[in-house]
Amino acid sequence: MNPLALGPFTDAPGFVEAQAHDAADELAEYRSRFVFAEPQLIYLDGNSLGRLPVATQQHLHELVAEEWGSRLIASWGEGWWTLGRDTGDLLAPLIGAVPGSVVVSDSTSVCLFKLAWGALRLQSGRSRIITDDLNFPTDLFVLQAAADAAGGGRIEVIPSRDGIHGPVAAIKAALDQDVALVSLSHVVFKSGYLYDMRKITEAAHEVGALVLWDLSHSAGVVNADLSTVDLAVGCTYKYLNGGPGAPAFMYVHPELPLENPLLGWWGHARPFDFDLEYRPASNIARLQTGTMPILSLAAIAPAAQLVAEAGISRIRSKSVALTGYLIDLADEVLAPLGFEVASPRDAARRGSHVSLRHPDAWRVVQSMINDARVVPDFRDPDNIRFGLAPLYVGFGDIHTAVHRIAALIREDRPSQYRRDRSTVT
Amino acid sequence: MNPLALGPFTDAPGFVEAQAHDAADELAEYRSRFVFAEPQLIYLDGNSLGRLPVATQQHLHELVAEEWGSRLIASWGEGWWTLGRDTGDLLAPLIGAVPGSVVVSDSTSVCLFKLAWGALRLQSGRSRIITDDLNFPTDLFVLQAAADAAGGGRIEVIPSRDGIHGPVAAIKAALDQDVALVSLSHVVFKSGYLYDMRKITEAAHEVGALVLWDLSHSAGVVNADLSTVDLAVGCTYKYLNGGPGAPAFMYVHPELPLENPLLGWWGHARPFDFDLEYRPASNIARLQTGTMPILSLAAIAPAAQLVAEAGISRIRSKSVALTGYLIDLADEVLAPLGFEVASPRDAARRGSHVSLRHPDAWRVVQSMINDARVVPDFRDPDNIRFGLAPLYVGFGDIHTAVHRIAALIREDRPSQYRRDRSTVT
Repeated sequence: MNPLALGPFTDAPGFVEAQAHDAADELAEYRSRFVFAEPQLIYLDGNSLGRLPVATQQHLHELVAEEWGSRLIASWGEGWWTLGRDTGDLLAPLIGAVPGSVVVSDSTSVCLFKLAWGALRLQSGRSRIITDDLNFPTDLFVLQAAADAAGGGRIEVIPSRDGIHGPVAAIKAALDQDVALVSLSHVVFKSGYLYDMRKITEAAHEVGALVLWDLSHSAGVVNADLSTVDLAVGCTYKYLNGGPGAPAFMYVHPELPLENPLLGWWGHARPFDFDLEYRPASNIARLQTGTMPILSLAAIAPAAQLVAEAGISRIRSKSVALTGYLIDLADEVLAPLGFEVASPRDAARRGSHVSLRHPDAWRVVQSMINDARVVPDFRDPDNIRFGLAPLYVGFGDIHTAVHRIAALIREDRPSQYRRDRSTVT
Repeated sequence: MNPLALGPFTDAPGFVEAQAHDAADELAEYRSRFVFAEPQLIYLDGNSLGRLPVATQQHLHELVAEEWGSRLIASWGEGWWTLGRDTGDLLAPLIGAVPGSVVVSDSTSVCLFKLAWGALRLQSGRSRIITDDLNFPTDLFVLQAAADAAGGGRIEVIPSRDGIHGPVAAIKAALDQDVALVSLSHVVFKSGYLYDMRKITEAAHEVGALVLWDLSHSAGVVNADLSTVDLAVGCTYKYLNGGPGAPAFMYVHPELPLENPLLGWWGHARPFDFDLEYRPASNIARLQTGTMPILSLAAIAPAAQLVAEAGISRIRSKSVALTGYLIDLADEVLAPLGFEVASPRDAARRGSHVSLRHPDAWRVVQSMINDARVVPDFRDPDNIRFGLAPLYVGFGDIHTAVHRIAALIREDRPSQYRRDRSTVT
């Protein structure tokens, strides 16, 4: 088969408008702050793994050579020991939290376990835990595991009516004095639905329930205000560009006396006394457990600084414009080819990724990646997820990507792929 | 004050012998496989943070530039997703375990929590957990936390008589049918006492107790045979040189049906189905939880390969010789200056670090680091710990270090340091 035409599609409708959007983009300069190793690649998977910032590459190089290679153990006293809290303080303004209320430590799942367990311990006597079926499955597993470890609790998974929008009314209707905890993804992983954090939080508080938000798909790209929120976790490797598997953050409202189920020396008040009795640190460090993976942890700061410099409000504005633009183009160019928008059309209820459904989604994604060099995410059974990271994705990228996809469908390229369902991981 | 004489101390007794030992050292060539940024630094803290291998520096450079920067999300399918298990398979022969029984994931504390919880679940009806007061305090905290989460259990901390040797007889005497778990450090963190793993394991098994060994201070430097051992954890940033805070490993005997308390998608049988029901993987992957810190995790393999190449038996032989040599020199040169050996004198019961006690240990350590460029570890109140990593420490280093220490004591250099007890972390 001939190579697919990779564009730019200068004759296609809207090309001039896309160029005009890019020319007017206040954040356009940030593209140059990221590594672009393959010029023709249109990377629309920044909601799964953010691109490598140029500053991070340099920082890691120095970290390995100088801090580990040369300073060795002295580096623990020169920034490593407090890096979880210091990075938390960097992240705090990006998620609408006050300094001292955020700490980076462990994976998102482990962080969620800690906070859910702590919340349930504070809510003894209440037995219900409310979530929805749009939540990331791990969150449900972790909530149940935390409930078991905390001495009990029943997870209730409220279903979405359409698989796209959060079941807000049903969640509110489920609230009563027996609800210990409401835990939801701020932006849900498949459809990109964006919960009204304030509204849900207020409703939960009215019955005395605590709320625990998972900001994995919103941190770094959607405004948040955690001032009345009890608890939150989130990952740092999506829109925060912290690198593959970079450790997650925990937020705890400063007035909430949350305890940590996973006691280790990093949460101790005086860790270097090596006292056999555990005494928790009085600050957010009490939620740390064991020694942090410094290489992965240290990659977060330079990336978070980029987000801070660009500003969450400008990032959110561009994100809304990018996702709206993709939806418009999908309606116009891709709908006639069998694609269907599976994300909220109301920008106020949408995060920074857009899902399209296609009956042959798995094959389409293989062809997009291999033939068209457009990288989205595939989510079983029929979901193609486009993450639009405002710091390095432009309107021209989206125009080109959509027309590449249209071309590969017209040329029937997806049909060449065969899925082997037995291999998964 | 004049600069301290940094040697080599060619006129001091034993100099020629030290040189002869180094000339006969089969592992001498491995020194060049590590980064030595400061030639005069004698680094005796590899039991806290191992040196940077040259191969690791190169590997991390490529990982960041190629795997993250260029291949991006595709790297998850090209080695990242299975890196915890693959690294576990690399470590398995180094700790006497069979392939498929070891996985790298999370911090040592979190790994210990998982295995202790799992063990206690398998031992319901038994209420006692036996450990000792030489164990790393975190291990005690974690054991109690795991017992609480698993539904109960009482930690019993058997005291060492002299703070140096493990209380083997008292541990054995404490064993009965109500003991669920015995958990000890294979090599204890302060004195370096090395437990007879087989003897303790057999005694525990006689009463139906499970054993959980913490190999943090032995992995990579002491032979182990886990064939009859139920459970083990260990860190990878000491003698395995995996880098600051590199994630830890878990070992589970292949026949032990251990469950994981921290359920996340990395432990799921089919993680990419995004099924809302949890089904554990049938292999060791079931003990994983959330997304791994890839940069930190990836640093382990090149370092572990060095250990494998050198061979644990050769490493152990040199370690025994190095620690014996340091004890001899300490008796001869440092004992008259107020130092006392606080590690086992029997090489069969000694790991790869040697502790010396000194009444003014904190000041001595400051002076060693700042004036003498000899880096040990200080452990409150009077403990100076020398970690002798056989891959990059030689006999000449020890000779020089001991004579530098003697010189700074004779010149009363420690007295210039003032400790502020209020600052800890």
